[in-house]
Amino acid sequence: MSPSERRFVIRLGCPDRTGIVARIAGFLAEHGGWIVEAGYHTDPNTGWFFTRQEVRADSLPFGIDELRRRFVAVADELGSRTDWRVSDTGERRRVVILVSKESHCLHDLLGRVGSGELDVDLRAVIGNHPDLGPITEAHGIPFHHIPFATDPDAKTAAFQQVRELVETQDPNAIVLARFMQVLPPELCAAWAGRALNIHHSFLPSFAGARPYHQAYERGVKLIGATCHYVTAELDAGPIVEQDVIRVDHTDDVADMVRKGRDIEKIVLARGLRAHLEDRVLVHGRRTVVF
Amino acid sequence: MSPSERRFVIRLGCPDRTGIVARIAGFLAEHGGWIVEAGYHTDPNTGWFFTRQEVRADSLPFGIDELRRRFVAVADELGSRTDWRVSDTGERRRVVILVSKESHCLHDLLGRVGSGELDVDLRAVIGNHPDLGPITEAHGIPFHHIPFATDPDAKTAAFQQVRELVETQDPNAIVLARFMQVLPPELCAAWAGRALNIHHSFLPSFAGARPYHQAYERGVKLIGATCHYVTAELDAGPIVEQDVIRVDHTDDVADMVRKGRDIEKIVLARGLRAHLEDRVLVHGRRTVVF
Amino acid sequence: MSPSERRFVIRLGCPDRTGIVARIAGFLAEHGGWIVEAGYHTDPNTGWFFTRQEVRADSLPFGIDELRRRFVAVADELGSRTDWRVSDTGERRRVVILVSKESHCLHDLLGRVGSGELDVDLRAVIGNHPDLGPITEAHGIPFHHIPFATDPDAKTAAFQQVRELVETQDPNAIVLARFMQVLPPELCAAWAGRALNIHHSFLPSFAGARPYHQAYERGVKLIGATCHYVTAELDAGPIVEQDVIRVDHTDDVADMVRKGRDIEKIVLARGLRAHLEDRVLVHGRRTVVF
Amino acid sequence: MSPSERRFVIRLGCPDRTGIVARIAGFLAEHGGWIVEAGYHTDPNTGWFFTRQEVRADSLPFGIDELRRRFVAVADELGSRTDWRVSDTGERRRVVILVSKESHCLHDLLGRVGSGELDVDLRAVIGNHPDLGPITEAHGIPFHHIPFATDPDAKTAAFQQVRELVETQDPNAIVLARFMQVLPPELCAAWAGRALNIHHSFLPSFAGARPYHQAYERGVKLIGATCHYVTAELDAGPIVEQDVIRVDHTDDVADMVRKGRDIEKIVLARGLRAHLEDRVLVHGRRTVVF
Repeated sequence: MSPSERRFVIRLGCPDRTGIVARIAGFLAEHGGWIVEAGYHTDPNTGWFFTRQEVRADSLPFGIDELRRRFVAVADELGSRTDWRVSDTGERRRVVILVSKESHCLHDLLGRVGSGELDVDLRAVIGNHPDLGPITEAHGIPFHHIPFATDPDAKTAAFQQVRELVETQDPNAIVLARFMQVLPPELCAAWAGRALNIHHSFLPSFAGARPYHQAYERGVKLIGATCHYVTAELDAGPIVEQDVIRVDHTDDVADMVRKGRDIEKIVLARGLRAHLEDRVLVHGRRTVVF
Repeated sequence: MSPSERRFVIRLGCPDRTGIVARIAGFLAEHGGWIVEAGYHTDPNTGWFFTRQEVRADSLPFGIDELRRRFVAVADELGSRTDWRVSDTGERRRVVILVSKESHCLHDLLGRVGSGELDVDLRAVIGNHPDLGPITEAHGIPFHHIPFATDPDAKTAAFQQVRELVETQDPNAIVLARFMQVLPPELCAAWAGRALNIHHSFLPSFAGARPYHQAYERGVKLIGATCHYVTAELDAGPIVEQDVIRVDHTDDVADMVRKGRDIEKIVLARGLRAHLEDRVLVHGRRTVVF
Repeated sequence: MSPSERRFVIRLGCPDRTGIVARIAGFLAEHGGWIVEAGYHTDPNTGWFFTRQEVRADSLPFGIDELRRRFVAVADELGSRTDWRVSDTGERRRVVILVSKESHCLHDLLGRVGSGELDVDLRAVIGNHPDLGPITEAHGIPFHHIPFATDPDAKTAAFQQVRELVETQDPNAIVLARFMQVLPPELCAAWAGRALNIHHSFLPSFAGARPYHQAYERGVKLIGATCHYVTAELDAGPIVEQDVIRVDHTDDVADMVRKGRDIEKIVLARGLRAHLEDRVLVHGRRTVVF
Repeated sequence: MSPSERRFVIRLGCPDRTGIVARIAGFLAEHGGWIVEAGYHTDPNTGWFFTRQEVRADSLPFGIDELRRRFVAVADELGSRTDWRVSDTGERRRVVILVSKESHCLHDLLGRVGSGELDVDLRAVIGNHPDLGPITEAHGIPFHHIPFATDPDAKTAAFQQVRELVETQDPNAIVLARFMQVLPPELCAAWAGRALNIHHSFLPSFAGARPYHQAYERGVKLIGATCHYVTAELDAGPIVEQDVIRVDHTDDVADMVRKGRDIEKIVLARGLRAHLEDRVLVHGRRTVVF
């Protein structure tokens, strides 16, 4: 990454009022900050203001710690409910992936990492089945197999092991790439805003198990996939990305499963990219994706 | 319509077995029948066979009544559960449209009829509000205003009036073009397989009232529309056509309503065309659309 | 339109440098301007900066003339190549539509105007054939029939008549809604940035005559439509909006024409809306659509 | 593959006339043939009839050789221009892939083969650069590096080597998965109907080099990809599959390249599947994809 490509990303949400843009832009201009990309949005229903700005790191006379220190005053002026973060694109994002047996999302992510398209530090893949170990390791990524027995105590222990493995890596994103175990509430809480799931339906249709079977039974003419943040309520977290593909009467459940895979992997990759580029601001059950 | 364009359409469903195609095709070939378009499908889950065939009317040495008479023997050979129909594209389809205040679907259908794209005999438009009378009449189509009071008895009486008006026209299709009254079960039964509704969501998501508000609350990234046959269970009838359009955080409910209209009118027009061309075969809750 | 809904729209383009956002936002904040929507973009290839901002009219202590007067100083500071405009959403946009015989785009636009979805002052429809007069007049819009003979002198005279009729209305948009005459270069120049055409292909594929025939011959699997500004080079102006629809081997040219109409009318309506909301900034052959 | 899943696929094209369906279906019924899937199409412009039928192998009292022998009489009756083939889904399809440096299509195909979704015998990957060797070999597939020098004689020799390697495998499909060398006419001829290319544009727009740069310059609002059979005329062969994805002014060339990859790999995978399932019938420059 050349110095001109390294950027500081400011994300901020607060109740809307006049002068917010001027205050932030004025602060940046005062220090020579070069805004490379800027998004602004006000939700007319909630009166909440959202912004995301990318500033060339080399245009500022100080580093990210000083930027954060100085930004406190700006944020304070915007009110006590202001919620903000500053991140540095120069820090490679750390990612951990959880899988079961279905391989298409993992293959897709490994391919994107391998080709450099997704420039992340993929720390580990954790599977509750051993099946996807070899392909993971062929890409030079550590694979951890943690079996999940069905009795509750064993499951709790297994999740505890997963948690430790994940948190050791301090990941920016925990990706449930067709991981077929329901996260317990305490993990949902611990990983809030960092755990992304891909659900194989166009939510809120067909939440829960076997969505393609449900779609087939209902006779829908499009099937879809949804990338969302994991919350304690199953398949009900804030949606980051969705897409659909057309099916017709010639498609049985197996065809839907096959066609759906292409949508799942693309929707997951798009959602993950938006998350890692700090483009997603969550507000209640909705997301702003700049 | 030139004689070579007039066609007899055979639709048939029966339990699958060998020789069905041969039996039907053999029957047609025996009489010189020229098959212009043919669709075949077997549902592997139910073992049900479906076919639709278009035969040039002028290739057969007899008319539709004789075709029907002779086809009885073919159908009988295919088993007692065989369900079949023969129709004539030379008979213009009769259509009645029910509306309330929302005009976009009506405008769209009137435009298609006016330009000749949808070559039907549009017998009447019935509205529970008077608002869409003038535009209907400007297109030379009779408009009937039947007010719906809110007390149950008045509503029953109003539906009785609607029923009489509709059934006088013996329509091939009754189109609920954003008609905001729920049909009573007896009308659903009487019009089964002929009444098409457009629902302004991607069903089964957001059935019932105010689907765009529901979609906004849930924060979905695509909104849709569904054309389905009306059944006694609200918004649960067999789906003929669906489509979606992308939305994002900048779209509030009013934007979704506006963008959704374009999908609604197109999905309704496609579904209606498929229905009027006898392309839809219903089997349980699913449709085969040839 | 309630006072809080009336907005001033600032559009500006200039070479990128630091401090532009701060300068504009600072100017607005100084006068209490409430920014309702703001878009920013820098084209990394040309180094050109683009912005569009919507400010609540009632948040400023002065009207649009004073806003324009005061904005001159801001723009001057941003350099001599700065190109800017301020418009008022409280002024209804004036629109003139040119048509030939194809009715679907006109039906669609009349429906949108009639339902209030497209809140414009539709001043006139001009046709080189009389066919679309009755439906236009049924909507209460004046229709002018100007026949186009084939000899060059008569054509020149006809275009002169069209020009006078159009310019009398001082329109914000001149919409070529499947108008089948090629505008002479002097009209392209006179109406630059205001004349929008809908071409029935996914440009740059299939420019010129009979695009659906070309698409059929080439055997493409998707057909499209393109809304673009009219320039002297045929079908080569800056593109505002495009979309496509899937076709397959069962679609002959007539089917493509029919399916294409749905895309044409929607793409035209979207492009026109973006133009009338002052969302389109043209830079060379490309557009920024905020 | 269970016996009931093994199928014989009959593909046939001939001038249309009455009785074709009856003749083929009658022949199959006579021997107890169970038709699992059947497609029929007549091109009204050329009067050419196309059919594809899947018959359960275990429903016939003979094997594929005897089926072919007996079918000769059927085909002869349909006229001397009849073009037909019978294939056996029980024979695994042999595939060879040609690549350069771009890895996304190869990653995607390897993932599909590895997961069993694409159940083929992937015989070899040949690259004119060594870069994609390791990932190919990690999947257990032989990789051959054949360097292409720029002088014409060396290039001819390199293509000769490629040809020998490919033809040794007698492949059903030769996949150009972003292979950046133009096949010489003699190879196009030798591999006609078996060599599939993925071109990174929505053809016929942007044929030739650097299509995303061309798309960016033209300012299109959608970019696409095209899977087509290779012919001697560059990027002009019969199209099997196409798709597009939306872009806007915020996407520079690098973004288009990235977004386009997802479309390329999916379009290639769909086109290849259709080809390997013997679903594609080529007629002149157009394809019928059953």
